[in-house]
Amino acid sequence: MRAVTVRPGRQDAVEVRDVPDPAPGAGELLVEGVAAGVCGTDLDIVAGDYGWAPPGRDRLVLGHESLGRVRHAPDGSGFAPGDLVAGVVRHPDPEPCGACAHGQPDMCRNGRYTERGIKERDGFAAELWCVEPSCAVRLDPCLARGGVLIEPGSVVAKAWEQVERVGARAWFEPRRVLVTGAGPIGLLAALFSVRRGLVTHVLDRVTDGPKPALVRDLGAEYHTGDIADVLAAVRPDVVIEATGAGPLVLGVLTGTDAYGIVCLTGVAPAGRDLTVDAGAVGRDLVLGNRAVVGSVNGNVRHFRQAADTLAAADQDWLERVITRRVPLDRAADAYAAARSGADVKVVIDLDPSAS
Amino acid sequence: MRAVTVRPGRQDAVEVRDVPDPAPGAGELLVEGVAAGVCGTDLDIVAGDYGWAPPGRDRLVLGHESLGRVRHAPDGSGFAPGDLVAGVVRHPDPEPCGACAHGQPDMCRNGRYTERGIKERDGFAAELWCVEPSCAVRLDPCLARGGVLIEPGSVVAKAWEQVERVGARAWFEPRRVLVTGAGPIGLLAALFSVRRGLVTHVLDRVTDGPKPALVRDLGAEYHTGDIADVLAAVRPDVVIEATGAGPLVLGVLTGTDAYGIVCLTGVAPAGRDLTVDAGAVGRDLVLGNRAVVGSVNGNVRHFRQAADTLAAADQDWLERVITRRVPLDRAADAYAAARSGADVKVVIDLDPSAS
Repeated sequence: MRAVTVRPGRQDAVEVRDVPDPAPGAGELLVEGVAAGVCGTDLDIVAGDYGWAPPGRDRLVLGHESLGRVRHAPDGSGFAPGDLVAGVVRHPDPEPCGACAHGQPDMCRNGRYTERGIKERDGFAAELWCVEPSCAVRLDPCLARGGVLIEPGSVVAKAWEQVERVGARAWFEPRRVLVTGAGPIGLLAALFSVRRGLVTHVLDRVTDGPKPALVRDLGAEYHTGDIADVLAAVRPDVVIEATGAGPLVLGVLTGTDAYGIVCLTGVAPAGRDLTVDAGAVGRDLVLGNRAVVGSVNGNVRHFRQAADTLAAADQDWLERVITRRVPLDRAADAYAAARSGADVKVVIDLDPSAS
Repeated sequence: MRAVTVRPGRQDAVEVRDVPDPAPGAGELLVEGVAAGVCGTDLDIVAGDYGWAPPGRDRLVLGHESLGRVRHAPDGSGFAPGDLVAGVVRHPDPEPCGACAHGQPDMCRNGRYTERGIKERDGFAAELWCVEPSCAVRLDPCLARGGVLIEPGSVVAKAWEQVERVGARAWFEPRRVLVTGAGPIGLLAALFSVRRGLVTHVLDRVTDGPKPALVRDLGAEYHTGDIADVLAAVRPDVVIEATGAGPLVLGVLTGTDAYGIVCLTGVAPAGRDLTVDAGAVGRDLVLGNRAVVGSVNGNVRHFRQAADTLAAADQDWLERVITRRVPLDRAADAYAAARSGADVKVVIDLDPSAS
């Protein structure tokens, strides 16, 4: 079978290679790849800045945003041939730490977790892959195309769970939400927000392209401009920060409404110093009982929440978030397109019948 | 009766004045003042930078850290003459907002709350005061001297509640705690930490005076030096920041262990710019699932928690936190001493028999 591979730690090119078909372990599902999404973590791996091959190998199969169709499922697995599935990314560390032992590898304490397509486990950008039933989530058949967004959806589901659980430390009935960044995470965060009945605002830099209409078609308001001005106008109870950009990370630390909760989900390169009045930031957080919570990854429960929310969404809207589909044999083009920044979500089509 | 008064918004001196005895409203307790603590908020009021007199008046009775003894209690109030009591500081806003309506004025959303000795309500630095039974907390008789620390204890009880509720959003079994600042809030935060069985570290600047021994006598470790070095050595699961100082507020945003929780409780003046790599801070918060929560004030439940914890503490240790006691007729000296920074906690003795 063919798979998208890279040598982590090196800057050489992505290669679509013929590799041996994977052999399902006891109890595992054998899955035909339908599509794999491309995100910033993939670009970091392709650039040689991140990623680890499985032990004893120099090549990693890329892809942690998955969509596949079950070819073979063992009896009693709870899955059947033809089921549409997505695979969980992060697996528990071997120790395991307390979080991993409690089914929360997304909260792993010791950093020794493994991740499909990222850290010591082959990913899903392949014509065939295997997965343990406990790490697979069945998707509604309506998600035959948009279902490749389940993984970013799981990140958003976890972020919203963090907001709600941090909010539940006292009385909490949020009304206004600001999402910073209208990439896939930001757009899905806005979708989850709107579906909760919250008044939703999205801030991004661009005035053209598909983002403004994608936001407005959710029933949310699209903003460009300065973060401080937008915060002052919206006074959000909740901020989902989805860019990682320093000025936005700093900007959203102040300016929410009292008891505001900021969830940081974005990661950007370190190394750019900004100035901040830390006394003022601290004062604002303390006197307003405000909270900031970082959130990364998602466990199988968050994948299930994402599967439910995306199945209930407008499938045409989900498809519009995917602005480019590249066939497997031109996979390198997918990473180049994603790097250019002009797209919202780039996806590699793995199923030859779809091309 | 005599009371410590000030004209909020002016820099003129604190005055101990003869004022009319307060008349208890229906159902209220009449309380003889035993002691009133002095804290940074009092100094801000005395400096003319904060504080509001009751409507229609220009003078405010100071004092939000209270200790008193019930002189008269209505039948059915749940209190009896001779009971040692402390009064809650913040009262709900008149609207009320959702938080105030749910008994959480400490989480008030609209800022229209009132506060005894701070905002539109006379305080407790008086020979007599009145209080509604619902805003009074009975203290164990062993707290006849240390009980004046109940209000800062309530701030700490709330801070710990925030940590535990934010921690409970996923698996959480903290072991190591760092408290920054060994003032009254920091010392009480360390007391609460030790009583939870946690390995407790305290960072402060000073190497002399009573702080090092107060920390060590709790069974905690005392540190001086750079925050980054201390964080690297301790790798705390929880940080209670009790200074508000910009470099510490910024410093503790990174460097906790994975899933670390930082509770900010300190407030310092704004206006001093520092340099920060916001991208690195955001990355650390996101990839480590870290959380930062600001916490101010405490509601009656937190006062009760503080009353329980302080009653179970070593009373000699509590008394050592109070490094200066000033009689009522020299109250102005108490504020001057507190401003000098050489003391840990300065208290005004209101009961002439104690002087």
